[in-house]
Amino acid sequence: MISAASTVRAMREHRPLVHQITNYVVMNETANATLALGALPVMAHAPEEVEEMARIASALVLNIGTLSEHWVEAMLLAGGVASARGIPVVLDPVGAGATRYRTDTARRILDVVRVTVVRGNAGEVATLVGAEAEVRGVESMSTGIDVAELAREAARRLGVVASVTGPVDHVSDGERVLAVANGDALLGAVTGTGCMSTAITGCFLAAKPEAPLEAAAEALAAFGVAAEDAAAGAAGPGTFHARLYDSLYALDPKTLDDRTRIEDA
Amino acid sequence: MISAASTVRAMREHRPLVHQITNYVVMNETANATLALGALPVMAHAPEEVEEMARIASALVLNIGTLSEHWVEAMLLAGGVASARGIPVVLDPVGAGATRYRTDTARRILDVVRVTVVRGNAGEVATLVGAEAEVRGVESMSTGIDVAELAREAARRLGVVASVTGPVDHVSDGERVLAVANGDALLGAVTGTGCMSTAITGCFLAAKPEAPLEAAAEALAAFGVAAEDAAAGAAGPGTFHARLYDSLYALDPKTLDDRTRIEDA
Amino acid sequence: MISAASTVRAMREHRPLVHQITNYVVMNETANATLALGALPVMAHAPEEVEEMARIASALVLNIGTLSEHWVEAMLLAGGVASARGIPVVLDPVGAGATRYRTDTARRILDVVRVTVVRGNAGEVATLVGAEAEVRGVESMSTGIDVAELAREAARRLGVVASVTGPVDHVSDGERVLAVANGDALLGAVTGTGCMSTAITGCFLAAKPEAPLEAAAEALAAFGVAAEDAAAGAAGPGTFHARLYDSLYALDPKTLDDRTRIEDA
Repeated sequence: MISAASTVRAMREHRPLVHQITNYVVMNETANATLALGALPVMAHAPEEVEEMARIASALVLNIGTLSEHWVEAMLLAGGVASARGIPVVLDPVGAGATRYRTDTARRILDVVRVTVVRGNAGEVATLVGAEAEVRGVESMSTGIDVAELAREAARRLGVVASVTGPVDHVSDGERVLAVANGDALLGAVTGTGCMSTAITGCFLAAKPEAPLEAAAEALAAFGVAAEDAAAGAAGPGTFHARLYDSLYALDPKTLDDRTRIEDA
Repeated sequence: MISAASTVRAMREHRPLVHQITNYVVMNETANATLALGALPVMAHAPEEVEEMARIASALVLNIGTLSEHWVEAMLLAGGVASARGIPVVLDPVGAGATRYRTDTARRILDVVRVTVVRGNAGEVATLVGAEAEVRGVESMSTGIDVAELAREAARRLGVVASVTGPVDHVSDGERVLAVANGDALLGAVTGTGCMSTAITGCFLAAKPEAPLEAAAEALAAFGVAAEDAAAGAAGPGTFHARLYDSLYALDPKTLDDRTRIEDA
Repeated sequence: MISAASTVRAMREHRPLVHQITNYVVMNETANATLALGALPVMAHAPEEVEEMARIASALVLNIGTLSEHWVEAMLLAGGVASARGIPVVLDPVGAGATRYRTDTARRILDVVRVTVVRGNAGEVATLVGAEAEVRGVESMSTGIDVAELAREAARRLGVVASVTGPVDHVSDGERVLAVANGDALLGAVTGTGCMSTAITGCFLAAKPEAPLEAAAEALAAFGVAAEDAAAGAAGPGTFHARLYDSLYALDPKTLDDRTRIEDA
């Protein structure tokens, strides 16, 4: 059953620990989004400690936005523990398609780690399934892709739930495709909002590990509702960004399910 | 004598340089808190340069929130210079108790460096004195600890001023214990506010190196007053966070001592 | 011809990709400033991928604010590609003069890479031309320098456009010196605003590569205008910081040229 409200309620009650190995650009932002929403972030990337941290976490988020050798090693180590423990793993293949190193690293993680959800933009996800895509830096320029089909195809080929964000988000387990229509255009004017949606997906999976398709769609819908609230009254991307944490913190389970726009695509 | 106001005045007049080797998540935030308060931050972690930077600094802040091998090496090098020069060193043992690597690193720094103040939450500090503590990630879940006694005990055993933050903060030199009751619950909804309190402790010590117990308590009280001001009118953690720098910048020495709530515990 | 407005228009139309290898403290901030202004940031520093990223970028920004060995290597690799392709390169020598490592690294980049613009404060730039300068940490304390002359001299000796920021900024190609008088004192109370001005210089050069002197001056003027707008109504450095992205986003080409204060020095 899809209910972002009940997942948020569960999250705030249990405050799951979400271990994030993410990029330098957005660490503060994804930790704050996690905390504002009601879960507990922990950011740890040293190969010396990631396994121990993954052992006490309820979900693991891997984000390849700024890579280097030791970080990849740490992601594989933490991913190994998470796979063995069966906790949800979310992968954000930031910039896959832009450089070979990113594409290869994303594929390597998918090979070795039991990834539950891949959350990316259309260009990144298309790259991972071997389709042609235009990725400029970390921005997807792809147009003309049937995103619902891309999500279904990616889910099948990669054996994951594919969560493809864009003007409308599409989430698929290879059979069903859910379209999520919440959000605001200002999300595109703040760096790291994609990474935040990945972290929030980790939070929702931690609270509802038994239903990754639904949890991933709820996460995007809830984040989108928060963005809608933040945009109302924001003077631009800076105040929108500050207000986004206010809105995540203030998400009200009583009204949330009436506001989420999730439907079968 | 305890007077946050006179320490802030001295800080703004001399603008001490506070060298911070801190974690990736909060670097921007602790630098901005330092600057807003009136001191000068410098963030440098390369083993090639940390000794040179520590040689021109008035205080050194070591924060183990995101560790790796070279960073530990850099902390020990900078700590060596700071110890030799007799400038104050503040250690933030982020996540001690959560992984062995963090606990061991914090202990190693305490062994090798003349640490002036340890600023942590109850779980982290309890870990360092060998007590049982529940630490989930970087959050302390410890309850039922007599925090005043913990602060006194930690100060004695570690040979430092122990600054244990929580709903009420406790600062001790092993004899006297000062309780600080300023602050706001929203601090717990923003990542890095503990790390900010550590950086601010470094700023106060730089301005009042002769009285570390008093300076450490004043730092927490002043930060707490700023948090109270920031919370008044904030719509949630995001706008609170932005307003926190406004409040640090606007801290008024004329009224500050009337507002700080520091007393013997 | 000097026209910040027409450069902003071109930038928003073409959305150039600006590759930034910058310091940990300000990554999120410079990426957000780039995005708010209308260009696309990409942050990538792994030696494994920086050449590939520099190959698709329209400008490269190198900032030495937090150094380590691999990062220097990555800057030289990306700089090599940028030099070969003839795209503009902006160097921010953060803290040159404070430690030998920073001074040497800045000089090494200048030796090996075809740097288009050096953007720094007076102390940093003076250090690079071999003049005596007082640099405390990453803050320039130099006074009594004739900054217009410094900019001209640095441009000649280093073979670059020198962009020296301060209360009034001075930009020179070795012949002409442009003085830019936009800005607000609150810029000095927020960390990373110098780094933002460097990133924005990269954006302007990407949009107007044929006229680096003019583009560099326009960048500082436009950033200064945004700072003036952000300061109007800000309660301190925190809200100013959030509003700064709003103002960059809202920069209006229709009125911009009337507001920029650029003149021959």
